[in-house]
Amino acid sequence: MLTDFNVVNLLFNIFNMPKTKPKILVTNDDGITAPGIRTLIAQMCLLGDVYVVAPDKPQSGKGHAITIDAILELKPLKVNSSAVKEIACTGTPADCVKLAINEVLDTRPDLCVSGINHGSNSSISVIYSGTMSAAIEAGVEGIPSIGFSLCDFSKDADFREAEPYVYKIAKEVLACGLPDGIVLNVNFPKVSEVRYKGVKVCRQARANWREKFDKRRNPLGKEYYWLTGEFENLDAGEDTDEYWLSKNYISLVPIQFDLTAHHMIQKLNTWKLNG
Amino acid sequence: MLTDFNVVNLLFNIFNMPKTKPKILVTNDDGITAPGIRTLIAQMCLLGDVYVVAPDKPQSGKGHAITIDAILELKPLKVNSSAVKEIACTGTPADCVKLAINEVLDTRPDLCVSGINHGSNSSISVIYSGTMSAAIEAGVEGIPSIGFSLCDFSKDADFREAEPYVYKIAKEVLACGLPDGIVLNVNFPKVSEVRYKGVKVCRQARANWREKFDKRRNPLGKEYYWLTGEFENLDAGEDTDEYWLSKNYISLVPIQFDLTAHHMIQKLNTWKLNG
Repeated sequence: MLTDFNVVNLLFNIFNMPKTKPKILVTNDDGITAPGIRTLIAQMCLLGDVYVVAPDKPQSGKGHAITIDAILELKPLKVNSSAVKEIACTGTPADCVKLAINEVLDTRPDLCVSGINHGSNSSISVIYSGTMSAAIEAGVEGIPSIGFSLCDFSKDADFREAEPYVYKIAKEVLACGLPDGIVLNVNFPKVSEVRYKGVKVCRQARANWREKFDKRRNPLGKEYYWLTGEFENLDAGEDTDEYWLSKNYISLVPIQFDLTAHHMIQKLNTWKLNG
Repeated sequence: MLTDFNVVNLLFNIFNMPKTKPKILVTNDDGITAPGIRTLIAQMCLLGDVYVVAPDKPQSGKGHAITIDAILELKPLKVNSSAVKEIACTGTPADCVKLAINEVLDTRPDLCVSGINHGSNSSISVIYSGTMSAAIEAGVEGIPSIGFSLCDFSKDADFREAEPYVYKIAKEVLACGLPDGIVLNVNFPKVSEVRYKGVKVCRQARANWREKFDKRRNPLGKEYYWLTGEFENLDAGEDTDEYWLSKNYISLVPIQFDLTAHHMIQKLNTWKLNG
């Protein structure tokens, strides 16, 4: 898929004119003030004109929620970076992308990046992730898009080692584009004494979260629950995101939002569903 | 995948004992009092022991959101059907499934059904849908699972013609199981003078929602937005859910939650991401 940016630069090359800068939309789910998005904004400002539209509060675990039963507000902030604009949004990450494209930017962005999330979005976490849903939303709109996450929940998570890879992967997507329907899910291992060994293109591991509900009683004696859980990798494959993250590699999974299990169609046609 | 129910009944057949009834979890995103879920409960009571755990209020468009920043409550209701239990939950559809499996049912259900949704969940709507996310959540937990939706938003939507198909599809899944990682997305056309022509197994159409934000001002002059939009089918294929729904067929799409775009892995390995 050639983006407008690619086409314009192709024409500019032919006529030997100075190149235009790509327009980059930055968002996340941890909120516009999170350290992860500040790292991402700084790196994207090295590559193009950056527009930030991100939630005004944490929106982790919001999946692909959109707001249809409440109003949405945009709050322009004092720009605290080299970005062109920074706007906080009262909605979900997917709302942010929809509002950015339709109400904030004059023309469509050449790239959308989401993150860097505080915490893993590898394997099954991709379906719960606000960060990845924002990236997917841009993908649905036909915009090349990447979600970045660091497997470290802590507030003091160290994003520095991720920076050159964020830059490199975004630059490659700007140069090559992505086919229609494809979005990248990039996860960085937690920084340890060992440096990242490189990037591995891999598949999503089969995994789930084993819930443990923490059951309590309020002061009036009424029961309530907190959702907690432990991640459980059910996949012994050596080509998965979980496998390579455990080996200190950065995982890059191409994902799609055509959820059709094409290989099941023939089998289901043998079922007696009619007559 | 043979469920516990299948295995137990196999043993019961061998020893010529009366069959046990399957345990069926029913949920939705329109809320436990919606007409669509009442239809679904009634049909499932013909097939097994029914446990209802569904949101206490509408949760449309909540995608695969889970509640990690707030408490969850379960409110047992007076059973208004032939179900064993009916419980309203303060959380999202995915929360309902997690709580049902971990805190309500003694043993895992043999089947989870979600819906019948008031409104379409065909093509791209699957990623925004609370109904389908509940079904997917059960699938992630290894439970055979089906989401049902009627392409009619109205409060007075007519679910009667869908009833025999809901029964038949659920019965087939109870008999055959579903492979690990597969969930069914069933959509019924809006009832018109023409009767349903049958069920078509098909793929998810490539489509999106073209947003139209309705911009207003509050009494203090501050701008806000309502998210609205129009569905846009970008797919001319004659094997999609949109195509067959338009021909008055019921669409059945097998979906998966492994989002990996396997066909992109080789291509991405040619990118210069390392060194």
